[in-house]
Order: sequence, then C-alpha cells, then structure tokens
Amino acid sequence: MATTSAALVVTSPGATFERSTIERRELRDHDVLIDIRYAGICHSDIHQVRDDWGGTTFPIVPGHEIVGEVAAVGPAVTRHAVGDRVGVGCFVDSCRECEPCKDGEDQYCLRGNVPTYNGRDYDGEITYGGYSQTIVVDENYVLRVPTSLSYEGAAPLLCAGITVYSPLRHWAAGPGKKVAVVGLGGLGHMAVKIAHALGAEVTVLSQTLSKQDEGRRLGADHYYATNDKATFKTLSGTFDLVINTVSANLPIDAYLGLLRLNGTMVNVGAPAEPSEFRVFSLFRGRRSLAGSSIGGIRETQEMLDFCAEHGLAADVEVIGADQVDEAYERVLRSDVRFRFVIDVATLASA
Amino acid sequence: MATTSAALVVTSPGATFERSTIERRELRDHDVLIDIRYAGICHSDIHQVRDDWGGTTFPIVPGHEIVGEVAAVGPAVTRHAVGDRVGVGCFVDSCRECEPCKDGEDQYCLRGNVPTYNGRDYDGEITYGGYSQTIVVDENYVLRVPTSLSYEGAAPLLCAGITVYSPLRHWAAGPGKKVAVVGLGGLGHMAVKIAHALGAEVTVLSQTLSKQDEGRRLGADHYYATNDKATFKTLSGTFDLVINTVSANLPIDAYLGLLRLNGTMVNVGAPAEPSEFRVFSLFRGRRSLAGSSIGGIRETQEMLDFCAEHGLAADVEVIGADQVDEAYERVLRSDVRFRFVIDVATLASA
Repeated sequence: MATTSAALVVTSPGATFERSTIERRELRDHDVLIDIRYAGICHSDIHQVRDDWGGTTFPIVPGHEIVGEVAAVGPAVTRHAVGDRVGVGCFVDSCRECEPCKDGEDQYCLRGNVPTYNGRDYDGEITYGGYSQTIVVDENYVLRVPTSLSYEGAAPLLCAGITVYSPLRHWAAGPGKKVAVVGLGGLGHMAVKIAHALGAEVTVLSQTLSKQDEGRRLGADHYYATNDKATFKTLSGTFDLVINTVSANLPIDAYLGLLRLNGTMVNVGAPAEPSEFRVFSLFRGRRSLAGSSIGGIRETQEMLDFCAEHGLAADVEVIGADQVDEAYERVLRSDVRFRFVIDVATLASA
Repeated sequence: MATTSAALVVTSPGATFERSTIERRELRDHDVLIDIRYAGICHSDIHQVRDDWGGTTFPIVPGHEIVGEVAAVGPAVTRHAVGDRVGVGCFVDSCRECEPCKDGEDQYCLRGNVPTYNGRDYDGEITYGGYSQTIVVDENYVLRVPTSLSYEGAAPLLCAGITVYSPLRHWAAGPGKKVAVVGLGGLGHMAVKIAHALGAEVTVLSQTLSKQDEGRRLGADHYYATNDKATFKTLSGTFDLVINTVSANLPIDAYLGLLRLNGTMVNVGAPAEPSEFRVFSLFRGRRSLAGSSIGGIRETQEMLDFCAEHGLAADVEVIGADQVDEAYERVLRSDVRFRFVIDVATLASA
C-alpha cells in the first residue's frame, strides 16, 4: 500500500514552499520505509527549486540530507530493521552493473544514478526528497547512522560531509599534507573538521577574517582572507590540495598558484557560468584542476563511521517547516553557521 | 678562453634570421664544450623569436633540442669525455637545492631553472641556444645520446620527446590504459610512438584524417577526426589519459567528456589566451585537467635510453641554416612531418 506523506512542495520556479502531500510507493521486496526526522538544506536545493540549472520538474520536494528511523521493511530486506537509525544521501539507486558501480563508485554510475529528488527512478517515477515525513528507498542505498551521532548533526553529512570526505580521501589528505579549504559554509566547515581529523595541516581561505575564530575552533591551523591580495603571495606554492567549496566563479589562476609541485585544486562547488584559466598556470609544478561529485554508498558509510569515531558532526541551526523560505535567503547571504536542518516533526503540526 | 661560435640570430621581433657570431664562456671546472651537430626547431622557438609571450631579449639565438659531440671538458668533469655523443634540452642549470631539484624534478626548480636560450644564467649572462656551432653547458645538464640513435633523430627528443614522455610516465600510460593524443605534430608524433612502446592503446585525435596513414605507421591503434562531431559522441568516456599537444585553444569541455572515471587531460601545448571550461565537466567521472612542463634531467636520460632500447626517434626533415625562416612558416602551417632539424654543419659553410 502506498503511503501518503506530508511534504514541503514548490510548484513553480521562484515560488515559495507550500505544505502539501505526496505518495510514497508501496514497499518492494528490498525497500525500506523511513520516518524522516531531519533534512538538511543544501545549496543545490536552492538552485533546483529556482531552476538555476534548468530542467527542474515541478512540483519539487527537495532534500538529500535525510536521517530518520526505519518504520517498515520489505520482505527481502536484510541490511536494515525496523527502529534502525538510517540516512539517505544524494541518490537512491544506480545501475549496479557498470564498472564504477561494481567498483563501489556508484556516484559515477555510467547509466546515471537516480537522484533522491528532481530525478526519475528507473521505472519513470519522479523522485521526491527529504522535506517530507517519509521516504521509501531500496535498502542498498540506505546508510546506517551510528548511535553516537545526533540525527540533526548527522543529516548534513549525507551530502556536505561526503562531498568533501571523498576528495580528501581520494587525494590522500593526511599527516604531512597541507590542505586549503576555500569557503567556510556547509561544505567548507565539514572539510575543515574532516581534514583536521585525517591529520592534515588545514588552512581556511575565506573572503574575510570574519569567521576566523570559528574556523580555528573547527580545526583550522591557519586562516587567511582572500580579499587581501598578500594572501596569494604569502601562500604561493604551499598546498598539496585545495578543496574549493565555493559555487561562485573564482580567479582560478590565483588559486592554482597556491599549489605546490603535483598539487591539485578540487572543485566541489559548481558555478553555473564557465570558468577561465591559463594553461601556463597548470604547467608550473605539474598542477591539476579536478572535480569531485559526492561519494559512493560504501564510502558514505565509511564517512559516517569515521565521523562517529572522531566525534564529528555538522554544526547546525534547526528550523521548522515554515522557516525554509527564510533559511534559503539566509543561505544565499552566507548567513548560516553552518547548515540549516529542518525538524521534520514540525511538518505534522500544521 | 672564450669560444667564438657562428650562430643564427634574430635581432628584433618579427625579423628574419641572420648569420652572426656569439661568444661561449671559457670552460669552468664542470663545463662541457659541445660541437653541435643538429638542432631541432620547436614551436616555442617561433613564439619567442616573435615575442608572442612577451619578455624576449634580443638578439636571440633559439634552439633547445641540441645534439653534438663533446669537444673539450673542464678539469673537474667526470660525467662526459671528449668525443662523447651528447645532448642538451630546455634548461642548462637549476638551483640544485630546492625540494623538486633534490627529488630529480629539476624542471620544476623553485628558483626557476636557467633556460637554454632567451634566459639568464644565475651569473646574469644571457643564454643562447642551439642554432649555433658550439655551446658550453655544466656537465650535470648534459645528456648522453645512445649510439643507436642518429644525431638528427635524437635532437627533437630533448624537448618534444621528454615533454610527452614525462606525462605519459607520470600518469602511468601502459598496458590496459587507453591514451588519446591530440594533435599529430612534433610532440604528438613522439607521444604516439612512446605511448605505443609503453604498451598503451593509442588513439590519435587530429583535426582531419589527412595524416591517418602516418599516424597508424607511428603506432596509433585508432585515428579520429575532431572536425567530425560524431567523434566526441563515439569516444565519450573512453580514455584514461588525453595528452593535448595543441597550442591553440580547444573546446576543453568536449575533450573532458572523452575521459573515463578518474581520467586526466594533460596539456603540454600552451595557448597564449585563457581557456574556458565548465566545472560540471570535471565533476562527472572525477576528471582532472593538468599541465606538464618538459621533464627533469634524470628523466630525460631515462627517456633517451628508453627510445634507444625501443628503436624510437623523431621523424625529421633536415634543413640547412638558410632555410630556417621558411621552415618556421611551414611549422605555422603544420606542414612538417614531423620535426625540422637544422644541420649545423651548414652554418660553417657561409
């Protein structure tokens, strides 16, 4: 039997959220029904609700930083049981047959994985995300949330956390490595915590020094303002890895100049406009400019376990269902320390 | 005693070559005096003679693909002896103290190495290149040219060869790897030969199919025209490594689309203008865009020995000293198969 679920819905580009309901599918053999407790607000939710990237299907229910409790399971489910603390991230299925899927890199599924919202399931159904009371997901795309992590602090790990954990691990951040984190928002603050916990020497590069104290509290060893041109001279040739979490266009050549020999600048923020660089900036020091997109299911579980082990969670501001439009405005003004999380219980009280 | 050497000189931007003479310094303890036999013509010679990149010091004597015979050695020289077959590449000194120098990556010397021409030695003297009868170089920056390589076929290895060998090795081209070579000029034809000898599956991406037969003879397994849009669809997600040898601006996003998971596009050609790309093109498949600049002295020797072992040399067209201006025009029209080499003996007969 399908489940009716209260949800926050946007019906057209630029419209505000409305309370409405959606249907969740009847449980299939391997499905898990989750009672959602908290859903994080990701910058990409805003882009898609406003159709900034084109192609959004309306109505849309955003949310891919989902945590909650298992309420029911299909007959063949073995990985999760009723009452388990679980999470759902950016995708809810993948082809499971291509080389990346078989290698546990299902975030790069060649068929294209199924986005948690604003996508289409392989059966053609439109997907709706976590700004809702329940969700139904195949057990293989459901993560275990360790008991030492609070629900609200864990929610943003499902996108912001894994999006920075994956490149930090792929490019071997750790002892002896110097890592710069560009931007101290939702992704950036998790990058600082995780890079620090991995043993790297961490520098925050933020527009101003306004968040310096918080940056150091999160684990940064150094903190520089990028609106000060001296920063780029002082730090020239310093970093093994620059994680760029900013989704606005940056002067890429200046940032490439911060890399030491064989250094890599990894972009996890996605500007809508094309970016410009000079090939000469890559020649010096055999530098690379790379991109990284979320992480695979296996690696997401590894990240959750790593965060639990190191006592890491997102710093969040919990809001009610009626505050989401306002929260979006504040995200766009970078006025959040460091992630908004919707208390989904407030959806029921309407 | 300083040595007077006949040389080909350009005295101002856009001027043609003149026969003239230059002075080579008296041998220091570790210096080697080389009687130059052949000097290759590199595209960057043309850029610098025409001051395309700015900062050229006139008069200029280009040439950093130099082979010849040792004519005299300083009293402390141990690495080379009179009569040895030797070569000189793109730089003739480096600081020898920085981390890259100590790691044998002296091409990325942090002080900046001393270019073979159009540079300044650490003592302030302007350097003059290989379009001349002799050159004096510190023994540590002089390579051994194996006897199985002809002088003329070996000359282009000192720049074109090492410039593609270094990234092919760094990004581990070899059995099981698919490598695309963009552009089939001086660098590209060596990239095909070396990648093939390393055991990779090699695809040439050239504007048209006009050089297809030659490409296959050089070792290419596949050959595609980039002026055919179908090429980018057919080859989507195919390559572990794309070596871009073209110094004009390419549609980078289209080429990034040719990379498979974790693939890298390495640029060894240097467009003067900024290049444009979309960060989204890097997200998919965790792709990288990198640069690579020539190679270190140790690696250049390794490359020469590798080429000797595999019977690889450049395909050259030997010209006389009076044909250099005409050769430059032909290089600019891509009308060379695949590298011009100046027979320096023709300098003496003026």
